[in-house]
Amino acid sequence: MKFELSAKDNSARSGIITTNRGEINTPAFMPVGTQATVKAMSPDEMKEIGAEIILCNTYHLYLRPGHEIIKNLGGLHKFMNWERPILTDSGGFQVFSLSALRTIGADGVQFRSHLDGSMHFIGPEKAMEIQSALGSDICMAFDECTPYPASYEYAVKSLELTTKWARRCKEAVSCQLSANSSQALFGIIQGGVYKDLRKRSLEELGEIGFDGYAAGGLSVGEPKEEMYEIINFIAPLMPDDKPRYLMGVGDPNDMLAAVEAGFDMFDCVMPTRNARNGTLFTSAGRISIKRTEYKADNSPLDENCGCYTCRNFSRAYLRHLFMSKEILSMRLNTLHNLYFYLDFFKKMRDAIKRKNLGDFKKKWELLLR
Amino acid sequence: MKFELSAKDNSARSGIITTNRGEINTPAFMPVGTQATVKAMSPDEMKEIGAEIILCNTYHLYLRPGHEIIKNLGGLHKFMNWERPILTDSGGFQVFSLSALRTIGADGVQFRSHLDGSMHFIGPEKAMEIQSALGSDICMAFDECTPYPASYEYAVKSLELTTKWARRCKEAVSCQLSANSSQALFGIIQGGVYKDLRKRSLEELGEIGFDGYAAGGLSVGEPKEEMYEIINFIAPLMPDDKPRYLMGVGDPNDMLAAVEAGFDMFDCVMPTRNARNGTLFTSAGRISIKRTEYKADNSPLDENCGCYTCRNFSRAYLRHLFMSKEILSMRLNTLHNLYFYLDFFKKMRDAIKRKNLGDFKKKWELLLR
Repeated sequence: MKFELSAKDNSARSGIITTNRGEINTPAFMPVGTQATVKAMSPDEMKEIGAEIILCNTYHLYLRPGHEIIKNLGGLHKFMNWERPILTDSGGFQVFSLSALRTIGADGVQFRSHLDGSMHFIGPEKAMEIQSALGSDICMAFDECTPYPASYEYAVKSLELTTKWARRCKEAVSCQLSANSSQALFGIIQGGVYKDLRKRSLEELGEIGFDGYAAGGLSVGEPKEEMYEIINFIAPLMPDDKPRYLMGVGDPNDMLAAVEAGFDMFDCVMPTRNARNGTLFTSAGRISIKRTEYKADNSPLDENCGCYTCRNFSRAYLRHLFMSKEILSMRLNTLHNLYFYLDFFKKMRDAIKRKNLGDFKKKWELLLR
Repeated sequence: MKFELSAKDNSARSGIITTNRGEINTPAFMPVGTQATVKAMSPDEMKEIGAEIILCNTYHLYLRPGHEIIKNLGGLHKFMNWERPILTDSGGFQVFSLSALRTIGADGVQFRSHLDGSMHFIGPEKAMEIQSALGSDICMAFDECTPYPASYEYAVKSLELTTKWARRCKEAVSCQLSANSSQALFGIIQGGVYKDLRKRSLEELGEIGFDGYAAGGLSVGEPKEEMYEIINFIAPLMPDDKPRYLMGVGDPNDMLAAVEAGFDMFDCVMPTRNARNGTLFTSAGRISIKRTEYKADNSPLDENCGCYTCRNFSRAYLRHLFMSKEILSMRLNTLHNLYFYLDFFKKMRDAIKRKNLGDFKKKWELLLR
């Protein structure tokens, strides 16, 4: 993996991540394909709307169908027919948020599957083994996502565990290097809402050395101001020559602020989940497509949008599909929201290149509330 | 609407229906788009797999979003972005099968909406008004679908009502001719499992004169042998120079037998509904994709199939999507099953042209059980 910056606008950056499977223009949004499919979308459509990378969830794929099965079928790319880059998370976040009966030890976490109650264990070595079997282009170190609220003492212990696990992930990957030498590994900064701990976490990860650095444990319930504080504090301290990934933050305004602070990569289920619930992003603000006012509205969802949905269907039809609980509703809505997000990132990249991200932000932040 | 026969193989026929919106090669299968969408499919995909006509349900569209709304939005074709031919049913079948508190009178049926309990009335004139507002290319006369079992006396009364309503439909359409002169009208033969009544129904409809004739009230619970009896009895009596439509019969073997008897048009939810339930049609027989044996099966669903699903995904992936209840499962399965059906009809047309439908039937009927 190679990362080159091509433009800067104050702290905001634009660049290109080059992988064996293609280039990723940054700042980049990664649609989420939890179970080896971006919900409601086909891989062809993902390419058509210009997705350059997607994220898949290690926890889900480990439990079903199983990483060994995917490996034997030729890897995750072949399995889901997606030849462009894939980032896999470490599984840590879902182990803590979805599974039951978690027992955290020095070597990892024992947990019960949310699917069938079976017992499992994932630690740093296992997380690397799974991601290697999946064959993702970028894999993430196994971390403990520090919850909110967390006491200073808890946050210290949590970050120390994350650092230890990060080192073991790096070592595990180094041993596997010959097997999968093109897989990049990112470390995850923890530390809760405590700036000194965030700084310490980043420094410890930097000593180990990773291909990229991510800020984890944000957008987990803390007030927006605290999240913005940490984003603005940590971004400038992160290495300039490596991608900076803000995990799980996907509100357009939050991403705009984070891009301004210097982050390069994002993922979130917001565009896809909102789409299925009928909340659609447009250049004139958010729309709830089920509203009665759209019942006979023959205009497109967004006149300024070039997606398949907006080029071919009226708001009245989209409302009808939503009210009728039709599958095509989820398809057309998801396609539009993802197109909007990817287009929004393209616009941000262009603004950085033109050095007017500030103006861009002023124009968009009201619309995107 | 124009209908020309181009080949015959014993009683089986192949021809072309020409409408203002395009040609339909017969025998033809019409995928069902109940609520102005073929479930899980986009109109682009429907075109890609070669669908030349689809069926939409008058009852559903009358209740939601309402035919007046669709008319004001430019008609059903524009509403759902489907420019090829559409056949609308009369609403009769759903009034009898879905709604509550039905009261049948000489002028039509009063019923309660299955959606919100509101009271409605549809009779022959109303059914024509709705279908005219929708702007379908082929509309169906309003009939009473005689249930099974039905006494001879009931079947007589039912068929007499259907004839009366058919005449009123024809008259209503004639008055509207200037408004929508390109809409064809088909009459529906009733009569239950009584051959003399079927013959009488057909003769009475023939006197009124329709652009095509349909056999209704079959596949409503009667034994297969009785259905085959009626199919083989009525088809040769139907006008040679008009399309013959067998309503709601969609099992491949039944359709094969009906094509052999001389029917030209079919509709059924079987390929789409089965797809969503994981039952898939292949050239080697039916498959239940959830079976454990496909867990690590890297082969395509059907090696002899050229659809997007079979060209790009393994059985293991299709099983995974189904087990994970992913929307893409319903999409890929539906696409495949419809492709299979349309391809099966193409093969039947070719067999008729080569005058070897008999051999074709022998080869396929075992596979399709």
